[in-house]
Amino acid sequence: MESKKPLESRTIMTDMVLPSETNPLNNLFGGELLARMDRAGSIAARRHSRRITVTASVNHVAFNQAVPLGSVVTVEAKVSRAFNTSMEVYIDVWVEDRYNGKRTKANEAIYTFVAVDDTGKPTEVPPLEPETELEKERFAGALRRKQLSLVLAGKMRPSDATELRALFMGN
Amino acid sequence: MESKKPLESRTIMTDMVLPSETNPLNNLFGGELLARMDRAGSIAARRHSRRITVTASVNHVAFNQAVPLGSVVTVEAKVSRAFNTSMEVYIDVWVEDRYNGKRTKANEAIYTFVAVDDTGKPTEVPPLEPETELEKERFAGALRRKQLSLVLAGKMRPSDATELRALFMGN
Amino acid sequence: MESKKPLESRTIMTDMVLPSETNPLNNLFGGELLARMDRAGSIAARRHSRRITVTASVNHVAFNQAVPLGSVVTVEAKVSRAFNTSMEVYIDVWVEDRYNGKRTKANEAIYTFVAVDDTGKPTEVPPLEPETELEKERFAGALRRKQLSLVLAGKMRPSDATELRALFMGN
Amino acid sequence: MESKKPLESRTIMTDMVLPSETNPLNNLFGGELLARMDRAGSIAARRHSRRITVTASVNHVAFNQAVPLGSVVTVEAKVSRAFNTSMEVYIDVWVEDRYNGKRTKANEAIYTFVAVDDTGKPTEVPPLEPETELEKERFAGALRRKQLSLVLAGKMRPSDATELRALFMGN
Amino acid sequence: MESKKPLESRTIMTDMVLPSETNPLNNLFGGELLARMDRAGSIAARRHSRRITVTASVNHVAFNQAVPLGSVVTVEAKVSRAFNTSMEVYIDVWVEDRYNGKRTKANEAIYTFVAVDDTGKPTEVPPLEPETELEKERFAGALRRKQLSLVLAGKMRPSDATELRALFMGN
Amino acid sequence: MESKKPLESRTIMTDMVLPSETNPLNNLFGGELLARMDRAGSIAARRHSRRITVTASVNHVAFNQAVPLGSVVTVEAKVSRAFNTSMEVYIDVWVEDRYNGKRTKANEAIYTFVAVDDTGKPTEVPPLEPETELEKERFAGALRRKQLSLVLAGKMRPSDATELRALFMGN
Repeated sequence: MESKKPLESRTIMTDMVLPSETNPLNNLFGGELLARMDRAGSIAARRHSRRITVTASVNHVAFNQAVPLGSVVTVEAKVSRAFNTSMEVYIDVWVEDRYNGKRTKANEAIYTFVAVDDTGKPTEVPPLEPETELEKERFAGALRRKQLSLVLAGKMRPSDATELRALFMGN
Repeated sequence: MESKKPLESRTIMTDMVLPSETNPLNNLFGGELLARMDRAGSIAARRHSRRITVTASVNHVAFNQAVPLGSVVTVEAKVSRAFNTSMEVYIDVWVEDRYNGKRTKANEAIYTFVAVDDTGKPTEVPPLEPETELEKERFAGALRRKQLSLVLAGKMRPSDATELRALFMGN
Repeated sequence: MESKKPLESRTIMTDMVLPSETNPLNNLFGGELLARMDRAGSIAARRHSRRITVTASVNHVAFNQAVPLGSVVTVEAKVSRAFNTSMEVYIDVWVEDRYNGKRTKANEAIYTFVAVDDTGKPTEVPPLEPETELEKERFAGALRRKQLSLVLAGKMRPSDATELRALFMGN
Repeated sequence: MESKKPLESRTIMTDMVLPSETNPLNNLFGGELLARMDRAGSIAARRHSRRITVTASVNHVAFNQAVPLGSVVTVEAKVSRAFNTSMEVYIDVWVEDRYNGKRTKANEAIYTFVAVDDTGKPTEVPPLEPETELEKERFAGALRRKQLSLVLAGKMRPSDATELRALFMGN
Repeated sequence: MESKKPLESRTIMTDMVLPSETNPLNNLFGGELLARMDRAGSIAARRHSRRITVTASVNHVAFNQAVPLGSVVTVEAKVSRAFNTSMEVYIDVWVEDRYNGKRTKANEAIYTFVAVDDTGKPTEVPPLEPETELEKERFAGALRRKQLSLVLAGKMRPSDATELRALFMGN
Repeated sequence: MESKKPLESRTIMTDMVLPSETNPLNNLFGGELLARMDRAGSIAARRHSRRITVTASVNHVAFNQAVPLGSVVTVEAKVSRAFNTSMEVYIDVWVEDRYNGKRTKANEAIYTFVAVDDTGKPTEVPPLEPETELEKERFAGALRRKQLSLVLAGKMRPSDATELRALFMGN
């Protein structure tokens, strides 16, 4: 299959924080943001694979900044690496100041999606060819994260996770 | 502060999968399950801390099994370790067969919540004292996962993550 | 069919009161609580019958206590008596104090569900065998409530409602 | 306070059954209909009292007929009797055939609402003066239903429920 | 086909403004009102045609008055003119004062719906026969509005829009 | 005030069509799309004005193409002209083919928003300076549309609507 660029899967979802999505502090519920990121990431994976996609895992979502009621939130998703039938998607979340329009980074998340056919069976996806520096860095890290998932799930022995071992032993 | 048992924070949320929560394959959206787990985990953290709690991070959510429309889903959350102002919460998800009532494990997730006062400032929480074998195992793993988060966020040097190093070098 | 215990159908649904579910006084809408109790009761009836269940009637729901925004609410449902194809389900609602964790009873409701097959036709359910004192008391009252429903619906003559007559004439 | 007619509180809520409100048989969830009836009944009680109203109890809701996805449902609520600070509201539900437009009665429910001031304290409401035969019949039955609620809640001795005793002993 | 009266399609949808439907000023979102009007208008068009109806266009919706949280809003829709397979529907929106019950006009909108069969193909509808003065006036204006839509969509030459030309040249 | 470019207000909202948003033909409800467009347009107006914005009117929304369940829909909004305190916003809607990724234009809508301060009072907005050919064309048409709205609302005499008269008399 012909490779694709990260730009081809880029998905932008800008929306407001509505009153029904807030917690007792009047900030966006973590769970609501997880659901929005899942939808945006799923569309990015579909754009890369042209298949139905289902969420396989979520990793390393850090909620660094509260997002108040009425904020404008932009969720931006791009495929960061394609494996055989799965895709890692990087999701960046920006919040916009109402008065000066300045955007600040509020969250960063990594989801993995699997492409499936109409019966739900995993199916092959095109490889990803990163272009920018950031895309290349995320592409490289994806293998390390995949090993980590396998080790933590007990599906790979730590001694076989060569990329990871280097990280902890190298320096 | 006096320590608490995991059982004291146990939160059970049983509900159906409604048509508005399903994807084109008629299974529960990953994002919807993430939102339900966030609410259940947040209640568990509140029961442990008796404070407002906000989601700090999500780690290692694996979606192993599709959950079809109309299923009965049980989300069960328990605090697995308390740090200074944060709590790791383990969330187990069970799906129930409509005909024979057999429950099967569908998901497992780890969320971290921070206890805050009414102004949103982090505030101390009681220590956790695990009781069962499984609770003790999850308690032990929590430190390793915390180090991992710090390393991946660039807030701890890999060489200082002693618990993690042991994992990758030990065997 | 083999009888079942109330414990086998026990369903616990713990969740928060979200901003989208509140009235102008910032308390949970009665209608939202009715909908939650319906879902919990329907799951209990399904656990007893292992069938699709549809709501047949609702009786004697008293809203004794306002439930404020942000509260943790636990809805607990258990089958209280099984008739031929229908089940009476008792639903208890508890609200949890945010600061001391004390649970207080907020509501009590009685719903009736009918078990149906895939075409919607009523189908037989197992008998119920109560165990605790409270379960036995609710089991006994169920017959009186069934007669009352029939009388009020004009489907039974008051003079034939022997259980009810005893109540009003006995003392 | 000057009395009001039932017609002055009449509230009509016509809407469709949306996919998000249906059960696995593709019919309207009982719980959703309970929530719609609560909103319509609450508006009727507000129109009678010109106050904020809160749900006090629900009685004798019978679900006689399934309401399929896509149906047009009309909920019609009218105050049937006013007591000191509370109002009984009768709610009739009609379903409309898509092809010939014929309306059939699908449900009938009785809710009670209490009028409150801005602090949530119960406050007096105008008396109701029924006009039509049906309104007079429902007005008369309301006292019997109120006694029944009090007896069942253990707040009135059966021997004091004169209206009810007559029903069971009279013939 | 036999003609119908506007009254036969009249649809009344009274409901409250819920917290999940409000903007940062605590007023009903324009978008939510547009969705409510679409559902009410669609039911009116269905009552006229006894067919599935789909929204074809929306014209001239003016939001003259903010509708605050907790208001009672009545949306009233009636078919104002029937063309071959389409129907123009006039929608009036009223808001009710909580204290004195006075209704004031909040909005007025004009939607067009097309009647379709089960495959989505447009299908003929009965003609409309207006009765009141207001109905006759709206009936007359509908032709002018239809020409205007066609001109603005580039599907009719301005010189052929005789009704419209008269409006701008006549006086 | 310094003028702004249309590009500075551009708002992209990509999302899926969920089951809860579909009509009996399994296509996106017109009303749901109107609500999405309202949110996107409102964000574009806020980006131009850096103020809270409220919907003032909706004009000429044509639903040319059904949008099936599961589609990926992109709503793109840009300010097309700024008047004293109001902004006209053009909204284009694209649907994406699941298999070949081809985007087709599904809708086009024109909304008007007013910028308000925290008390809801209209407040001045920057002028708009169009750049591309399409932006210039929409900018020019906005005046004609504004006159049309005023004429139809009875707030301007047809003979004073010089831009409109030219349209109908000129050829």
